[in-house]
Amino acid sequence: MDSQRLVNLLQQVRAGTVAVPAAVNQLRHLPFEDLGFAKVDHHRALRQGFPEVIMGLGKQAKDIAAIVRAMRRRRNNILVTRLDAQKMADLKKLRSGLRFHVDAGAATWVDKPIKITGKGTVLIVCAGTSDIPVAEEAVLTASMMGNRVEKLYDVGVAGIHRLLENRLRLDSASVLVVVAGMEGALPSVVAGLIDKPVIAVPTSIGYGASFHGLSALLGMLNSCAAGVTVVNIDNGFGAGFAASLINRV
Amino acid sequence: MDSQRLVNLLQQVRAGTVAVPAAVNQLRHLPFEDLGFAKVDHHRALRQGFPEVIMGLGKQAKDIAAIVRAMRRRRNNILVTRLDAQKMADLKKLRSGLRFHVDAGAATWVDKPIKITGKGTVLIVCAGTSDIPVAEEAVLTASMMGNRVEKLYDVGVAGIHRLLENRLRLDSASVLVVVAGMEGALPSVVAGLIDKPVIAVPTSIGYGASFHGLSALLGMLNSCAAGVTVVNIDNGFGAGFAASLINRV
Amino acid sequence: MDSQRLVNLLQQVRAGTVAVPAAVNQLRHLPFEDLGFAKVDHHRALRQGFPEVIMGLGKQAKDIAAIVRAMRRRRNNILVTRLDAQKMADLKKLRSGLRFHVDAGAATWVDKPIKITGKGTVLIVCAGTSDIPVAEEAVLTASMMGNRVEKLYDVGVAGIHRLLENRLRLDSASVLVVVAGMEGALPSVVAGLIDKPVIAVPTSIGYGASFHGLSALLGMLNSCAAGVTVVNIDNGFGAGFAASLINRV
Amino acid sequence: MDSQRLVNLLQQVRAGTVAVPAAVNQLRHLPFEDLGFAKVDHHRALRQGFPEVIMGLGKQAKDIAAIVRAMRRRRNNILVTRLDAQKMADLKKLRSGLRFHVDAGAATWVDKPIKITGKGTVLIVCAGTSDIPVAEEAVLTASMMGNRVEKLYDVGVAGIHRLLENRLRLDSASVLVVVAGMEGALPSVVAGLIDKPVIAVPTSIGYGASFHGLSALLGMLNSCAAGVTVVNIDNGFGAGFAASLINRV
Amino acid sequence: MDSQRLVNLLQQVRAGTVAVPAAVNQLRHLPFEDLGFAKVDHHRALRQGFPEVIMGLGKQAKDIAAIVRAMRRRRNNILVTRLDAQKMADLKKLRSGLRFHVDAGAATWVDKPIKITGKGTVLIVCAGTSDIPVAEEAVLTASMMGNRVEKLYDVGVAGIHRLLENRLRLDSASVLVVVAGMEGALPSVVAGLIDKPVIAVPTSIGYGASFHGLSALLGMLNSCAAGVTVVNIDNGFGAGFAASLINRV
Amino acid sequence: MDSQRLVNLLQQVRAGTVAVPAAVNQLRHLPFEDLGFAKVDHHRALRQGFPEVIMGLGKQAKDIAAIVRAMRRRRNNILVTRLDAQKMADLKKLRSGLRFHVDAGAATWVDKPIKITGKGTVLIVCAGTSDIPVAEEAVLTASMMGNRVEKLYDVGVAGIHRLLENRLRLDSASVLVVVAGMEGALPSVVAGLIDKPVIAVPTSIGYGASFHGLSALLGMLNSCAAGVTVVNIDNGFGAGFAASLINRV
Amino acid sequence: MDSQRLVNLLQQVRAGTVAVPAAVNQLRHLPFEDLGFAKVDHHRALRQGFPEVIMGLGKQAKDIAAIVRAMRRRRNNILVTRLDAQKMADLKKLRSGLRFHVDAGAATWVDKPIKITGKGTVLIVCAGTSDIPVAEEAVLTASMMGNRVEKLYDVGVAGIHRLLENRLRLDSASVLVVVAGMEGALPSVVAGLIDKPVIAVPTSIGYGASFHGLSALLGMLNSCAAGVTVVNIDNGFGAGFAASLINRV
Amino acid sequence: MDSQRLVNLLQQVRAGTVAVPAAVNQLRHLPFEDLGFAKVDHHRALRQGFPEVIMGLGKQAKDIAAIVRAMRRRRNNILVTRLDAQKMADLKKLRSGLRFHVDAGAATWVDKPIKITGKGTVLIVCAGTSDIPVAEEAVLTASMMGNRVEKLYDVGVAGIHRLLENRLRLDSASVLVVVAGMEGALPSVVAGLIDKPVIAVPTSIGYGASFHGLSALLGMLNSCAAGVTVVNIDNGFGAGFAASLINRV
Repeated sequence: MDSQRLVNLLQQVRAGTVAVPAAVNQLRHLPFEDLGFAKVDHHRALRQGFPEVIMGLGKQAKDIAAIVRAMRRRRNNILVTRLDAQKMADLKKLRSGLRFHVDAGAATWVDKPIKITGKGTVLIVCAGTSDIPVAEEAVLTASMMGNRVEKLYDVGVAGIHRLLENRLRLDSASVLVVVAGMEGALPSVVAGLIDKPVIAVPTSIGYGASFHGLSALLGMLNSCAAGVTVVNIDNGFGAGFAASLINRV
Repeated sequence: MDSQRLVNLLQQVRAGTVAVPAAVNQLRHLPFEDLGFAKVDHHRALRQGFPEVIMGLGKQAKDIAAIVRAMRRRRNNILVTRLDAQKMADLKKLRSGLRFHVDAGAATWVDKPIKITGKGTVLIVCAGTSDIPVAEEAVLTASMMGNRVEKLYDVGVAGIHRLLENRLRLDSASVLVVVAGMEGALPSVVAGLIDKPVIAVPTSIGYGASFHGLSALLGMLNSCAAGVTVVNIDNGFGAGFAASLINRV
Repeated sequence: MDSQRLVNLLQQVRAGTVAVPAAVNQLRHLPFEDLGFAKVDHHRALRQGFPEVIMGLGKQAKDIAAIVRAMRRRRNNILVTRLDAQKMADLKKLRSGLRFHVDAGAATWVDKPIKITGKGTVLIVCAGTSDIPVAEEAVLTASMMGNRVEKLYDVGVAGIHRLLENRLRLDSASVLVVVAGMEGALPSVVAGLIDKPVIAVPTSIGYGASFHGLSALLGMLNSCAAGVTVVNIDNGFGAGFAASLINRV
Repeated sequence: MDSQRLVNLLQQVRAGTVAVPAAVNQLRHLPFEDLGFAKVDHHRALRQGFPEVIMGLGKQAKDIAAIVRAMRRRRNNILVTRLDAQKMADLKKLRSGLRFHVDAGAATWVDKPIKITGKGTVLIVCAGTSDIPVAEEAVLTASMMGNRVEKLYDVGVAGIHRLLENRLRLDSASVLVVVAGMEGALPSVVAGLIDKPVIAVPTSIGYGASFHGLSALLGMLNSCAAGVTVVNIDNGFGAGFAASLINRV
Repeated sequence: MDSQRLVNLLQQVRAGTVAVPAAVNQLRHLPFEDLGFAKVDHHRALRQGFPEVIMGLGKQAKDIAAIVRAMRRRRNNILVTRLDAQKMADLKKLRSGLRFHVDAGAATWVDKPIKITGKGTVLIVCAGTSDIPVAEEAVLTASMMGNRVEKLYDVGVAGIHRLLENRLRLDSASVLVVVAGMEGALPSVVAGLIDKPVIAVPTSIGYGASFHGLSALLGMLNSCAAGVTVVNIDNGFGAGFAASLINRV
Repeated sequence: MDSQRLVNLLQQVRAGTVAVPAAVNQLRHLPFEDLGFAKVDHHRALRQGFPEVIMGLGKQAKDIAAIVRAMRRRRNNILVTRLDAQKMADLKKLRSGLRFHVDAGAATWVDKPIKITGKGTVLIVCAGTSDIPVAEEAVLTASMMGNRVEKLYDVGVAGIHRLLENRLRLDSASVLVVVAGMEGALPSVVAGLIDKPVIAVPTSIGYGASFHGLSALLGMLNSCAAGVTVVNIDNGFGAGFAASLINRV
Repeated sequence: MDSQRLVNLLQQVRAGTVAVPAAVNQLRHLPFEDLGFAKVDHHRALRQGFPEVIMGLGKQAKDIAAIVRAMRRRRNNILVTRLDAQKMADLKKLRSGLRFHVDAGAATWVDKPIKITGKGTVLIVCAGTSDIPVAEEAVLTASMMGNRVEKLYDVGVAGIHRLLENRLRLDSASVLVVVAGMEGALPSVVAGLIDKPVIAVPTSIGYGASFHGLSALLGMLNSCAAGVTVVNIDNGFGAGFAASLINRV
Repeated sequence: MDSQRLVNLLQQVRAGTVAVPAAVNQLRHLPFEDLGFAKVDHHRALRQGFPEVIMGLGKQAKDIAAIVRAMRRRRNNILVTRLDAQKMADLKKLRSGLRFHVDAGAATWVDKPIKITGKGTVLIVCAGTSDIPVAEEAVLTASMMGNRVEKLYDVGVAGIHRLLENRLRLDSASVLVVVAGMEGALPSVVAGLIDKPVIAVPTSIGYGASFHGLSALLGMLNSCAAGVTVVNIDNGFGAGFAASLINRV
């Protein structure tokens, strides 16, 4: 995949049709990528079976439809996140072929079958039923990125027994994504039970002094259990993405 | 304990030496308490065996010594809170007879033996060893106020087993004070295991995004377990005091 | 109520059909509760006459209706909180038999008569007329949990006389829930007049620098009167629940 | 006190030695004050008997001493605020003749006797003994500015009776400065008892969620009692100054 | 206006039909006001010509209409604040006779002519056209409370000339209410030009880092000009009320 | 452009019809501007070809239409900012002749051709497609103020290559406006690549812990690259305006 | 490693000396761990070659020395974090044999040689020289936990070239820890260049609006590059620990 | 200044001693700069006469001395910022030849005479005497970077006359740096008087609700005067640097 422009230039140098100083000058004005610098392009990601991603928040349905159309030409799988009910409805009319995931607030286009390339299992744990949409976004993201994904829902710390009963499932995962709102204590308890990486996702679930997820976010950042790392409030996608990278280390 | 002034006035009314309109007028200018309105004075508290309390924070050792001297004339027990090492040393020189509680940062003067008037046991639970000073302030306060007090320390949520092993002790308490810094998750877990009132005390233990206890405070206010109420950051005294009131309901 | 699985296993051990090492192994894989560990299940709560609770916030009317249907099979009383006008209207169509409490933003299903099991009276005090919905949620919660409940409304600190005129009612309560928005000063004044536990509930009433209840919350946490504990902003349910636990100590 | 430069210019215009266009031009380049625009200079303030003020915070003792020396030439009274113990000690050595007010953290130089020019009495009320330094700064400021000043200290809202017993003193003041830390509730209660202007001063007294006076500040801004206005945290000087202006309306 | 109950009781004492101890006891249970304690009731305010006030925020039009109906029986003037367009429209249908003030978001009922009882002029200054609704609330409040009120609008600090051109009007006022959003600098500049009390009103005008008026609020609290006191964000009513009290000192 | 009133007065002084003391007095009461003090009026700005600006936020379409009408009489160019879709639609009906810029949320009226008076090129850089509306506001502002403006969009720091490929365009600009939401890192990277003034504009793009642009704002204020200055969140207009002033230095 | 108590009990059941119901009862009162529940003990961690960790912050040197002494009996490696210069000096006197790491503010005791058990290389990247102490804490932690660790320091985003020159080193790591203060932009740029997990560590480096690391923390949480997870401010230990877990997936 | 390595490589290509594919490969592994990409190195800055800068905050005197020593070899001018009194004293002993600027908290080493390369005058304005250190840092920075710098100090908005008297100096500057603490209003007023770029520097001067400069920072970001841009709290260096860039546009 050498840059043709670069090869051409060097061949001209070789052939003597371009002098060295002129070549130096041209080199400086070549587009950066033509020089072949390593970069994380979507392509490297895509070769690993990762989908192309469209963040739906702040985009209109017609814009999303247009981006999907353009992407489909590249024959890659597509993940559209952060779609509310209205936007889903609009998108459904504009573009057939998308599969909608209501719980995750997302849509997917799977053109080539998803190969499992992640080593172990990604376990998505969540505290309460209201946290499920964020958890489902993580599930869908990790699935689309080629991981075996399992779920363990509604195991909040106020009823610690349900969590403990599932200790074997916690133990057998490779990476865990733990989603919780309110006081955000679940990741600490989970990380205390296992010795695997835990990605904590605070949610905006709560009211009053939850301050739209700030309470859960601070709780997770201050976790007394080592091994916990944190993503932005409600960022199920980011957690699923990071878990996928970890599952390939 | 009727106000003598009030009785005198009414007797003069009865005797006809003070006319009714004049009496109405005098009534209005009597000090409030002479009219015998119920009030929570220290006396009521003291009759229950509660100590008199001096908040040491922001007072100089010599001022505290002077207040102690004045109080001792009333023959009540005394609790001095929020004494740092320096202030304790200064106070020791100024006033013999005080007993110092280094862990709790407090001093006491026990003139009359403390009677146990609380019904059940107050259990003070704390998450980490750094939270112990705040826990000890609660222990001392509840003890001085006539309660049976027990302690369960170093049972943070990252090692949930130590907490679960002590489930019987949790169960047998009447009121629980649960002290924790960092993410402040312990009260939620404890309140999920029992059905007794839990008073949560956030501590300023932590660094960075703990923001001097704000993280723990928000976590506790957003507890997903019902029955948790919260006091100010590091307020072991307030928690011990509230637990004492509850233990008398 | 012994676990049948556990009994079976032990009987097989006794009968010699399961060897001890195998039994140890099977024990480890039994569900946690089968081992009979004490836990706060709803059942213990329910035996005390507590209702089952559905938090309506963030749930759709149809989901609430489904949960109610499932719960009714267990023949317990039900409390649904945080219903706005629209959700109430929707729920009314979906499910007959619920009783709606407009002021409290709640609905109840009372299948078995509520027995008074709380010892004394829970007094719900509120500062302004705008705080009434939160106060009513506390009233309804405490009532459903088997307490005698009284109300003292519209006694804000800017008109201290109305509060003082009701000093006898304050004095005769066992536990007090004090609800206030804006500067949140009422719990301090009330706690200074009595020697009973006071649960303070900040409300989001106010504008500008009230910051949606933050001002009242901070005021209550910094109360100069000992014995005050605090719950989340607008959390009338939590206050009523905690008061019920205290009223059983 | 006409500007001589302006008079000179106009006389030259009159005499015909300066042409009108040239005069217009010169007018534009005269210093602003030479044109006689009304301005609040210290002089106007001083004519009313107000002292000159030096804010000690952030200035070194030697700088303060130098400023005092310069001011003394103008024969005005002087008020130096925000002096801590060390700075007072340093200043004492550098400059004899200053009178130090330890409680107020201030020093004064009274060259001409202070005349009472304020109409009524300024009453300084404070909640706790720790708030006294801020209250004393207000007392000293208002006194130096020519007001009758009275004090009512240690009347916090947790013991409302002491405040109510002093209702006649509250009633007889013209302006009230009410100083309180922690939850900052006192100004609301006071303003509910009288119909005079109340200036509320939050103090940084407290710990934990008092956030260095933020809690008291927010409480006062959200006061449910009309007629309360607020100054910066610990700003006893500003409150005493504003009270003085009000007492001259 | 003596309490009949109190007079009756004293007459019975005099007549000997009630013994002194019994009288003491009855006195303690009389409602607080029957004992004739001074209190700021609306009546004192009303005797000064102050209107009764209804805060419209958080109340429904029908509730406001009902309160107005009840108040009218007392024949006092009425001021209803914080009415948005919809609530005004609803109220108009429910209750004829109210006069609506669209700019101020308020309604009034003037039953007895407003007498000017304030000594001087209250000047309402505002920075930008968007601040006018808050300023108008202050104007209406001060007018209804019997003050001569003048306005000086659109004199923001970015065009300091307009303000300086009006220096005589600033100078001739007794009390100033200065309304500004964004950086909230206007009160500092105004207070630097005059020596009268300045009440600063931050508004929520702005976007981004104005944080709904927090920026202006902090600016005003930190004013470098002495004599400035501050009310809550958008609290034109409170400023107008405080100005009225000051204008009567 | 001498003030006629001032000239008249001086001529009367010269003619002897006004005495000098009377003239001094009259001078003091002349409007400020009549004295010819330099001021930044719109006129100076307008002479430079700057448009008159109407901030649409918080104004109703009919008010904007009225202001436009008034301004058009002065024959200046006009820029209306902060128009949402609805307001644009309303304005379109009320006032023909305006040109609407949907991306920038703005409208313009260009009466006289815009002359390029800025020295170099203003380059507007933005990080993501969601930041484009703010960037477009800056583009339009700088264009209306007489600058050559170029755009470089969608060059966020997560794909640093696209930015580096455009290094020549960065280098050839005189002033740069760099617009970014989320972590707001782009201005630091850009300022590290060039040695021209960089004006950073944080946007409210993001969710959760972006706190409506606070995250980007703080990031930009703490830029590790010298030469970056910052404007308010979403303030594309302010950035375009400042860039125009800089481009004329 | 079966619990002897459990085996004994079952053997008694088998022998018939304990009846089944009595056995059920005894089972319930056995300590939790005797029942053999999986738990994350330090032992599991230690078997992987992880050291025992002492958090030095908030502990006195003599306490740390005592804990080290106790731990040494278990013959495990030890890592002591958060030691300032004074505490190191004190500790040096109290306990010989510790090795001090001044840059990392830590001490270690290596009893058994550290085996490399991590799969790939952990690369610690930091932005500025002031961030080095936090980076070194991460280096030391990851090293003690059995990882190959490399460093890439002083590659802040304001000089993007130094970072790009090291693209091969970035590319060849398995996990990256990226440490930065001020605007915290470095993790976003790094994560955009590679497709490996990036753990971002905000530092408290900065002043003014860095708010002790809040600015960097928010920047990292809002990273526009997927795959970034975040730990607490200055938490080099937590990042090194999480990286170690990831490097074993 | 062509990279010799690049030239060598191309010459080898030309000579046929390196094949094209091998050359492509080698190109990819050349250090980034060898490829001649434009970058802002210090060199470019230095060629313009800019000094090398050492940020003293967080560095020890001995480290600073070492960096100065290394830099002196390059014969460039040096600016060391953020030196407190102690660090200056230490540095004085370690390194002779530095010139110390006490007011600015800085030191300089001027090896080659500073040439004035800035076009116009940079005017540094500050509000109060406490703001002077920050202003002096800006003065020194702009001077070291080759600008004519003037100062206008102590012209706070509470005494607007002093500012207006200096209107001609404001008018004749090319760029203005305006430094203010407390409410931070000065930049708005200044920007309203002129049409030049204004860089606003908030300072941490103030107390209470100034929140260490937050109040001034927010005030400046919300400036109602267009053309104001802002730097970090107390960042005199950054303002002086940005002003220097602007003065070269």
